[in-house]
Amino acid sequence: MGRGLLYFILALNFELNILGCGSAKPSTRHQPSAQILNVRGKYFLIDCGEGAQTQMQLMGLSMANIGHVFISHNHGDHVFGLPGLIGTMDLLGRTAELHVHGPQQIGELLDFLVRTYYADIRYPLLFHPVDTRRHELIYEDRSITVHSIPLEHRIPSVGYLFREKPRLPHIRREMIEAYGIPFSQINNIKAGASWTTEDGTVIPHERLTSPAMKPRSYAYCSDTVYLPELKDIIEGVTLLYHEATYMHERALRAEQTRHTTAIQAATLARDARVGRLCIGHFSAAIKDEDALLREAQSVFPDTVLAKEGLVIDIK
Amino acid sequence: MGRGLLYFILALNFELNILGCGSAKPSTRHQPSAQILNVRGKYFLIDCGEGAQTQMQLMGLSMANIGHVFISHNHGDHVFGLPGLIGTMDLLGRTAELHVHGPQQIGELLDFLVRTYYADIRYPLLFHPVDTRRHELIYEDRSITVHSIPLEHRIPSVGYLFREKPRLPHIRREMIEAYGIPFSQINNIKAGASWTTEDGTVIPHERLTSPAMKPRSYAYCSDTVYLPELKDIIEGVTLLYHEATYMHERALRAEQTRHTTAIQAATLARDARVGRLCIGHFSAAIKDEDALLREAQSVFPDTVLAKEGLVIDIK
Repeated sequence: MGRGLLYFILALNFELNILGCGSAKPSTRHQPSAQILNVRGKYFLIDCGEGAQTQMQLMGLSMANIGHVFISHNHGDHVFGLPGLIGTMDLLGRTAELHVHGPQQIGELLDFLVRTYYADIRYPLLFHPVDTRRHELIYEDRSITVHSIPLEHRIPSVGYLFREKPRLPHIRREMIEAYGIPFSQINNIKAGASWTTEDGTVIPHERLTSPAMKPRSYAYCSDTVYLPELKDIIEGVTLLYHEATYMHERALRAEQTRHTTAIQAATLARDARVGRLCIGHFSAAIKDEDALLREAQSVFPDTVLAKEGLVIDIK
Repeated sequence: MGRGLLYFILALNFELNILGCGSAKPSTRHQPSAQILNVRGKYFLIDCGEGAQTQMQLMGLSMANIGHVFISHNHGDHVFGLPGLIGTMDLLGRTAELHVHGPQQIGELLDFLVRTYYADIRYPLLFHPVDTRRHELIYEDRSITVHSIPLEHRIPSVGYLFREKPRLPHIRREMIEAYGIPFSQINNIKAGASWTTEDGTVIPHERLTSPAMKPRSYAYCSDTVYLPELKDIIEGVTLLYHEATYMHERALRAEQTRHTTAIQAATLARDARVGRLCIGHFSAAIKDEDALLREAQSVFPDTVLAKEGLVIDIK
């Protein structure tokens, strides 16, 4: 494979790496919540439970590629990997800014950490509070947007919706050559222009290009009680990660602890017509996760179980 | 093996379990500092780097057996496992007191954790500040004493010296039977009494008993610059764990960062005439730990390398 093609493939990836998908009580089967969304080589760290650093090392994911961290809520199983991560980045010589997004309480944790451990840190650590009651744009770059998803848990909690921006269509090189179109016009054509030949024939834009890949999207919803109204926000996402802490027989317990059952997560996935569902944040009491999977699949067949080390190519 | 004998063996163990022996910068080879000293089934947790919980699970060490935690200093690689551990103990239904000993700064960390995460914790969490400049008794129970060891690092740091209390001699059951000594006198004889038979013959204490095992001891010294004067405090301990962050070629770096080289750790072990030396807290830059070991052994042959999962029977 040529270097160009390899770069092309790497440059377009949009994949989810599961570092941990257990819940608060540790088990030998799972690490606490943490994952990395790899968008064309840029890593977005989503939640950061204890041990996330170690999992990154095991999965060969360099923390130098992380620019932004998105934290759902200030419960230990979603944040206790942050203190170590921040220090390690400094030890590794980081100079680039690190941006942390999350509910106000995460800012207080960062304040404590900086005051106590990291007064001399050599890179800028920036906190961006997220309003957990609103669905709004909180981050944007050349390739994606990130919106908040209001969740409901025992403390303020928020999910995140990552959407690729629509891409320009691909130029059909053989048509460009056939019509002798100058290089200077390529961007115009990508942007929608047609081409008029010297004899006045108009070659429509559609003949000169092939459509871009459909923009991909990913929604992270954990921790939260079942919220049917989320379907409007996450309508049609390519992949939905939703917590499924309990089997449905424990629906009352889920309601009380502000968590979701597998059936509920799958119902939301079905109602929102998402492409695929990945369930996680499993209670340590669940010994048979396949039962949880079967339960979800009975409502939404295209469901997978999260698992440490799992990489999902979102497409 | 009879239940009685099994109990007897368990009841007398004095063993060190290494959970982590790396330094601040993570590597794929090591976890940050944490270890459990198992004294007759009571676990003393010494330092608690990130991931200590997971290591305990891997080694089959139940955190329910931990009553006291001893923290050397408030650097992340020695404490970032505490936040999760405290929460997990609550989730596991702990009701017994948990005592944490350490420099004043550890109290501030605990205050923050309780205020932020654990206001509703259901077991008493008690902090005991340790004066890092003094060598004094800080804990005592039926079987051991723990003394502080003043260390010197970039921030206040303290080591810990665990000493078994002298045990009473063993009764020689066949002698008791031969002289028809009543059960009520056993404790007196253990405590040093002789026995006078009906005809007035004095059977000396030494004939009725066999000597108790020599009390065992363990010293933990990490993190610290090389302090030759520690030899008086740790004189003759059965096992010394000492940090050896660097090879001796980096002695200047060790001095600057207030750490110790392998040669220095071994020199202290030799000068203090300890039984055995275990070195740890390896810099992530060290690729060949055997070189570090050879360096230490050139001064003090009975040296071993710490390693995650290593269990040392201290005798």
